[in-house]
Amino acid sequence: CDWSSDVCSSDLPIAKLVLVGAGLIGGSFALALRQAGMVGRIVGVGRSAASMEEAVRLGIVDEIVRDFSCASDATLVMLAMPVGQTRSVLRALAPHLGSGTVVTDAGSTKCDVVGAARAELGAALPRFVPGHPVAGTEHSGPKAAFPELYRGRRVVLTPLEQTDAAAVELVRQAWGACGAKIFELTPERHDQVLATVSHLPHLLAFALVDQVATQSHAEQLFSFAAGGFRDFTRIASSSPEMWRDICVANRAALSQELQRYRALLDQLQQALDAADGADRKSTRLNSSHSQQSSYAVFCLKKK
Amino acid sequence: CDWSSDVCSSDLPIAKLVLVGAGLIGGSFALALRQAGMVGRIVGVGRSAASMEEAVRLGIVDEIVRDFSCASDATLVMLAMPVGQTRSVLRALAPHLGSGTVVTDAGSTKCDVVGAARAELGAALPRFVPGHPVAGTEHSGPKAAFPELYRGRRVVLTPLEQTDAAAVELVRQAWGACGAKIFELTPERHDQVLATVSHLPHLLAFALVDQVATQSHAEQLFSFAAGGFRDFTRIASSSPEMWRDICVANRAALSQELQRYRALLDQLQQALDAADGADRKSTRLNSSHSQQSSYAVFCLKKK
Repeated sequence: CDWSSDVCSSDLPIAKLVLVGAGLIGGSFALALRQAGMVGRIVGVGRSAASMEEAVRLGIVDEIVRDFSCASDATLVMLAMPVGQTRSVLRALAPHLGSGTVVTDAGSTKCDVVGAARAELGAALPRFVPGHPVAGTEHSGPKAAFPELYRGRRVVLTPLEQTDAAAVELVRQAWGACGAKIFELTPERHDQVLATVSHLPHLLAFALVDQVATQSHAEQLFSFAAGGFRDFTRIASSSPEMWRDICVANRAALSQELQRYRALLDQLQQALDAADGADRKSTRLNSSHSQQSSYAVFCLKKK
Repeated sequence: CDWSSDVCSSDLPIAKLVLVGAGLIGGSFALALRQAGMVGRIVGVGRSAASMEEAVRLGIVDEIVRDFSCASDATLVMLAMPVGQTRSVLRALAPHLGSGTVVTDAGSTKCDVVGAARAELGAALPRFVPGHPVAGTEHSGPKAAFPELYRGRRVVLTPLEQTDAAAVELVRQAWGACGAKIFELTPERHDQVLATVSHLPHLLAFALVDQVATQSHAEQLFSFAAGGFRDFTRIASSSPEMWRDICVANRAALSQELQRYRALLDQLQQALDAADGADRKSTRLNSSHSQQSSYAVFCLKKK
């Protein structure tokens, strides 16, 4: 790394940050740390040269490198690429880690990330702090990054038994500087919670938009879409690669939630079709009847 | 009706409007017509005395009445209550309709409304113009009404063969004054389109929020909900009675769409569980494998 000694001697909490992936999540982290005066030099590593160059232009990273040799004197390495790449990145990174370098990640799933870290990090495992900022927008890439993304949002850390307290403290300090509220959960509990409130909703939105988009008269359908459906299209315009990785990585918890949801839809289908049959017999809409037969269906909403 | 002759002689396009239901939809229609200087006196009829009194306080209606006898000299009657009440309201209204009174509705389903009109309106059927403003918010009641709700939004009219051209023209003029873009579809096509882009999304959102709310640790789940799930809760906070009525009224088209969606989720479940099985064999996440096996699942998003 081209890393001059005067900058290295910085008293900043994070003298040198290695950012793996400089999109919405990593880019916003870097910008927030800069704004808070927490960070010295930011070195970027990423698959797409065009994206990394954009990250330089946008002031997210100071320098682009092609491998992880520059991690040897880094204070912190932040992994902010799609979670499917976690294991191969950790494998490439491990031989280059300095003895004091802390590694953290921003992946939306934690059991798979922890498994990859256990498999690849060896003696550096205690300095790995698994994390997940529960924040985002439907946009992606360096241009989507902004320093306020994490203000008031939750960051979940899932440290292991052997994780260094000092490493956790550094990561807490970094997220605190971004304005986030920090929580700790086990990796398992994290993945269950997120399967329910994040991964399943995204899968449902992708499926619904697909159902509409694949119809022969899709354009007419989209043209008549109002509020409810527009929210689904917004959700479904999130990065498909990121969400594919998340869903595959968290497939155990997500599969359970999807099964429960499908069972609920089975009940709704039955209730809907039963209302239909009853109505054909009575030949007219009877509001007290529909109130009863569809109570289970449409008074789902909690008051 | 207490309807003084000097106001009756008004040259306004809608000298007298009878508003059945003064919530978000009816109230916004009334406020927009007032703002456009299109309407003389507005008489309100509704189930809830408290709501109707609020509508008077908010300037939505000038006067509250208890039955439909005042419809005899009305220019236009707008039905803006939950669609499940359409038939009973039309039955009560029919004997009081003046020979020139035009009736329209704002119901989100059209086949059932047209069926109710055919059954109840008799000789007045040609002056009934079925309509649906494709607009709304997750709020309901008179307080939620605002005159700009329909600006730039679509209104679908589904006139019948026997519908008077002059009646259609009056309703077009009214919605035009609200700033809406007016389209015509058959009732059947309308109901198919809306089942896909509106009724199914709402049903899915109600179901998802129910799934989360009924879990023992629901509060923790809601506390970790980020962007995607918050959109679902917003959608699911729409009036449950209104949506129950819509789903029951449009159950034929909605049932078909729900069947298609369930079949898609069955495929997603299989793809997810297959990715799991394959991964257990290979004992690690292989990005090219997950790319293939989950392509059908997560690259649903149309570019």
